[in-house]
This record gives sequence, C-alpha cells and structure tokens, in this order.
Amino acid sequence: MSSEIMLPAGFRTAGICCGIKASGRPDLALFVSDAPAAAAGVFTTNRVCGAPVTVSRSRVPSASARGIVINSGNSNAATGAAGLADARAMTAEVASVLGCEEHQILVCSTGVIGVPLPMHKLQRGIPAAVDSLGDSSIHLQQAATAMMTTDTFHKTASREIRNASGIVRVSGAAKGAAMIAPNMATMLGVILTDASLTPQAADQMLRHGVDRSFNCISVDGHMSTSDTVLLLANGASGVTLTEAENLQLAEAIREVCEELATSIIRDAEGADHFITVDVAGFETRQQAERVAREICESALVKTAVTGADPNWGRIVSAAGYAGVAFETEQLSLRINGTEVYLSGTPVKFDEADLSRSMKENRDVHFELTLAGGPCSGSQSARFWTSDLTAEYVRLNSEYTT
Amino acid sequence: MSSEIMLPAGFRTAGICCGIKASGRPDLALFVSDAPAAAAGVFTTNRVCGAPVTVSRSRVPSASARGIVINSGNSNAATGAAGLADARAMTAEVASVLGCEEHQILVCSTGVIGVPLPMHKLQRGIPAAVDSLGDSSIHLQQAATAMMTTDTFHKTASREIRNASGIVRVSGAAKGAAMIAPNMATMLGVILTDASLTPQAADQMLRHGVDRSFNCISVDGHMSTSDTVLLLANGASGVTLTEAENLQLAEAIREVCEELATSIIRDAEGADHFITVDVAGFETRQQAERVAREICESALVKTAVTGADPNWGRIVSAAGYAGVAFETEQLSLRINGTEVYLSGTPVKFDEADLSRSMKENRDVHFELTLAGGPCSGSQSARFWTSDLTAEYVRLNSEYTT
Repeated sequence: MSSEIMLPAGFRTAGICCGIKASGRPDLALFVSDAPAAAAGVFTTNRVCGAPVTVSRSRVPSASARGIVINSGNSNAATGAAGLADARAMTAEVASVLGCEEHQILVCSTGVIGVPLPMHKLQRGIPAAVDSLGDSSIHLQQAATAMMTTDTFHKTASREIRNASGIVRVSGAAKGAAMIAPNMATMLGVILTDASLTPQAADQMLRHGVDRSFNCISVDGHMSTSDTVLLLANGASGVTLTEAENLQLAEAIREVCEELATSIIRDAEGADHFITVDVAGFETRQQAERVAREICESALVKTAVTGADPNWGRIVSAAGYAGVAFETEQLSLRINGTEVYLSGTPVKFDEADLSRSMKENRDVHFELTLAGGPCSGSQSARFWTSDLTAEYVRLNSEYTT
Repeated sequence: MSSEIMLPAGFRTAGICCGIKASGRPDLALFVSDAPAAAAGVFTTNRVCGAPVTVSRSRVPSASARGIVINSGNSNAATGAAGLADARAMTAEVASVLGCEEHQILVCSTGVIGVPLPMHKLQRGIPAAVDSLGDSSIHLQQAATAMMTTDTFHKTASREIRNASGIVRVSGAAKGAAMIAPNMATMLGVILTDASLTPQAADQMLRHGVDRSFNCISVDGHMSTSDTVLLLANGASGVTLTEAENLQLAEAIREVCEELATSIIRDAEGADHFITVDVAGFETRQQAERVAREICESALVKTAVTGADPNWGRIVSAAGYAGVAFETEQLSLRINGTEVYLSGTPVKFDEADLSRSMKENRDVHFELTLAGGPCSGSQSARFWTSDLTAEYVRLNSEYTT
C-alpha cells in the first residue's frame, strides 16, 4: 500500500493499458527478471480452472523463468482449447520480445469468464509493456494496478534481510479475491526476491507462506477458478544466506504473503469490518485451521459482526461443526479481549460495552481456545475474514449484463 | 400447511402457551402415543449441542417410547450440568402425568441459548398440555405451532398407504432452520406413524428419509446445536404391511420429510427465491451430494439468484471446488430448463429472457449433469436452498439484546 516499496535487484515491471477493459484502465502487467530465475507456483484446486492456470502450472517449479505476464479484464476461463492456445500465445509473444523461450514465461488472467481473449490487443500491448519496463517503486505500483479488477486500491508489500554482504529483498503485488457477476474476479499474487534459491527451495518457501496467508483468508468461501500465487527468485542480490538467514527469508516471504492477503480482506467488497480469528490449543494445525475456516465462512458469524453483536453462540456453534471431535467443556472464547465463554459456559459480560467496541473499531478479534480433553494440544491457526453486509448482497446481486 | 392433515391412529397432540415466550405465543408442544411405540432419532452432529439432544440421543432407538415434549423460546443449550438436569426433569414431569417411565419420553428445546429453562413454567405447563391433548387435525396444528420460533407458518405433512386390511398413516410436523441473534433457532421434526415397526426398521427408515430431505437443505450452511428429527411408530393401525408395502412406507416417510424440509426453505428468513438443485451423472451419491451442497452454500450463487442473474460461471465454479475429481469438459448446466453450459463450454442463450423467468418465478431450478470421464455414473442428488437477500443480512445483523 506504500509508494516506497522497492523492487528486488534484477527485476523490472510494467503496467499499461492495452484496451481489454472498456473503462480504459490499466489491464496488462509484466514482471521480468533480467536473468533466469527459480520459479514456483501455488494454484486454485478448483476443477474448473482458467487456461492460464493450466499453462503456468505445467511450467513450475522451474530453474529458468524470465517473467510473468498478467492481464485483467478477461480471465480466459471456460474458453476451451482456443483459450489454452491464447494463454500460450501470450507467453510466446513476451518471450519473443524478451528473446527467451516460451516456457520461461508464466501467465495469469483475471476478469470476465467465457469470452475469448482479444489477442490483437495483447499482441500490440505486450511489446508496449516491455518498452515501459522499469525498476522503480512506481513501476511496481503500475504493475500492481494493472492486475486490479474490483479492487479499490493496489496491493504491494516488501521485506528486507541484511547481512554483512548486502541486502536481500522480497517484494510482492496482489489483487483481490471477491467476485462480481458476470466478471469472475480472482486472487492473484506475485512475489519477487533477489535471493538465490533452488526451484525446490522456492517451492517450499512459497507453499509455507501461502498456507499461512492466502489460504487463511475467506471473503465468501467461493473458490475462484483462477487463484494463483507465483514466486520468482533470481539471485541478483549476490548475497549468500546462512541457514539461519534462509529461515529469515522464508519468514519474509510469509510476511509479504500475509500483508498482501490481509490487504485483500481489507478491500473486500462491501465490508465494514476486518475480522481476525485466532484458534489455539489444538492437537494439529489442520484441526485449528478447520475450526478457524468454519468460523470465517459462517454467514451468521459475519452478519453478527456487521450488527456489532458479540454473539458468542454463533461462533462457538460454527466451531462445533468443523468436524473436530472436542467436547463443549474444552472451549473458551474472547471477543476483542473480553472473555465471553469459558470452559463451555457463557460468562457474564457488559454486552453494551463490547458491542460499542465492535461498532467503533473496524478490526474485530476472536480468540477461541481449546484446553484439556480430546484434540487438545499446542497448535494454532490465524485466519482473516470480513463481515457480510447488505452492500455485499447488493454488489453481488446486481444483474450487470 | 393444510388444515386437513390427520394424526395417525393412537396418537394425541397438544400445543399450548406456558409463558416461556415473552410474546405470549404457544411455546409447549406434546406428542403422545397411547401405547408404547418404536422410536428413532437423527440428531445434529455439532460438537456443541443442547442438553435435550444429549438426553434424547441416549434414549433411541427404543421399543417403548410414549411421547415427545418440545418447548420453544429457550433452547436449553450451553447451560451445562443444570441444563441436562432440566431436560431430564421435563421428561420426568411428562412421564409422571402420563403414568410411564422417564426414559419413555423424548425431549427437544429451541430458542435462546445460554439461559436456564424457566422450570416452574414448564412444571405448570406440562400437566396443562396433557389435559389439552387431542387427536384432531387442529391438535396437530397446535403442536406444530407451539414448536415455531422465527417461522411465519406452521409446517405439517401427511401420507397414507392403503391395503385390504386398512390404512397406515404417516404425519409430521417441523419448524424452521434459520437462526436469528441472540436466539439460536434450529430445525426440529417429528414424524408419527401408526405402522408397526421394530426400533431397527424405524431407525433405518428415518435415516433414509432424513438423508434425502432434511440433510439436503441449506439456508445458510450454519449447523445448529439442536437439530433433531424423531420418529414414533406405534402399530395402532393394526395393519400388516407386505414387504413391498413396507417399501411404500419408507417412501411415505421420505415424502413427509421432504415436504417438511422444503417448507422450511420456503419459509427461510428474508428469502425471495426457492432454489432446487439437481445434480446427476456421478459415480456415487456422496459425490453428487457434495457438489449440490457447495452450490447451495455459495453466497455468490445465492446472490446471483436474488438478482435474477443466470450466472452459470458461479454455479459451475462452485461445483469445481466440491472436492470431486471430474474434468470441466464433462459438465453441463440448465437453468430453468435453458441450456447455458454444455460439455465445459458456455452456450449462447437469451439472457434477458432467462433473467425474466428467474425474476417472475419464485422457484428456480438448476440441473447440473456430468457425462463421460472420471467420477461419472448414474447417481444423483436433489438439494434445496433459498437465495441470499439484503433482508437476510438485515434480519441477522440486527442487534436484538
């Protein structure tokens, strides 16, 4: 969200208008590494996926990626064999201008589904995008902006690791997850680092980061057909990291993912509240995640937050159907720091006061903990979601064709 | 919904006001079999469940049930050990007035959670309810009305099987599933039949019926802490059914369950549309159910229907994340009989016309079929849901304490 976010060494980016969006807004983004980079990707598990997902998935992990081309305004999904050919043609066009092989370029598309890509616009736009590549923070902002669909602000984040031999930088851009008819928006993320990584290490670090960020957010529980997060690591920092510093790098990647993912929730369609759900005291992280996800996806929990209602019953009962075999007596819950449910029993609290705190603060915090008995342990998970407002319904029920 | 629904032989019911609801509306229902009956029950799988669920679950299947006592206005959930004692005391009170054992009585409660039951009101109300027991259709209506919380109409249904030796009747009552803060409403169903069944046969027939009805509806995907469906079979018809007629009985029980379950969806909070989702062509019924459930629980699908938007992309992509491993090319979809997606490719159709049909009809029909390739076969599932309106958000976000 800051304008001060620098690109890692050896990367250049661009964001331009090529005419896919009727609004004339930027719709073509390019992320290029000057030298071949390790590349990894995490993709939607939806069986109905866009052509670019199929193409990019087949090209990672890689040791020799050169760039990522992204268009917004058209998702190239539900477009059949012609769509696959178009996605490949986009990468071939970029490769031909950059002077590399087609398989070194990854591709993402987001926007309306079921409509063929306007390839003539992309064929004109791609050389123009290459011409406008640059390595300033403005260039990264422009690329982040050209990925946007219904987002109201562009999303970037950055972290640094410093040691005696220099600086390693991790910077990223993302676009939001909510979906508006008949456009099917999607969540896209690009993470760039000038650290030197093997494709396997890049893959592991990206999965670790995505599992604790993009996979922990929920706007409406609907999984898009095009969700993609890509990582390029080009080694251009020239810095050698110790084993301990490599863990710092993994943590920096996770933090960039988290900042981008929570920005998506802060920009969720029609939302009034940003909700952080901390679930702790479970035997496995998977159990904690299941419980956190059910809470985040409950329309009743989300509407309660909209109404500033400290409705512990809805939260506790959502936990109860997550498929984790605990007993009621093990559960306790705090809302915005106030204990409302302790060891399976409602606690007397000042409801008016807690409701006021939920009304006055955009951020709401649930802390659900399990103690003693079956499924209890030391594992936790943090998830994020937004509330569910009448404005969300209005935005998503407006018939726009 | 009809006033002509007769009770099966040997049953009497009552619905009275005992003062739990501040509104003064009926809040105590009784269903009594004059002779011991086979009893079966299906209960919420939520780990956080009301005390009456714990008590009733421990008493079925049974060969000697005499009745069911239900109060509305207070769910006796999240009430700890005192709540369990209160649930048992309700059944003891009924048993003492009827002259049977406590374990022969089942119990359900629905309404506000975390508040102790006003036992003095129930202790006065239960004898009064027994006094007003009767076997007319009005008595069944009164019992169905006394179960209601946020329902706008009472829900009853009935079927008959006739053979040379007489008539077997199946009649039922239910209340709705939606949940309003701070009350946690729930879905309750009672099925009565004068057929003679073993407890095991009663259990099998009830599970079969519930699996294809109450388990196939979704208002908001939130599983209540108190959902319960109970079946009593007292044999008072004196009719012996052949093996073939027993299958008819199972079908009659399923039909009564379906009519009650779909009534709940027709009465869903703030809903404008009743949506039937038919999913066919899968290898197993479980796969078809998973796909149907994801479609029913997608906020994006539901808001599209609210907006009369024939948004096939949202429906198809919800199917795609159900965890069933088909390929896009196998999928086809009809909305209100119009083909909109065929073998993975969008079909040209008159969008304005289809949108008009969705706007003018309260009932909307999706037919999703799988053909050829992985996971395809002859299994299907039918689910029902409602749309998601701004009115739903308003009802569920109003802070009512």
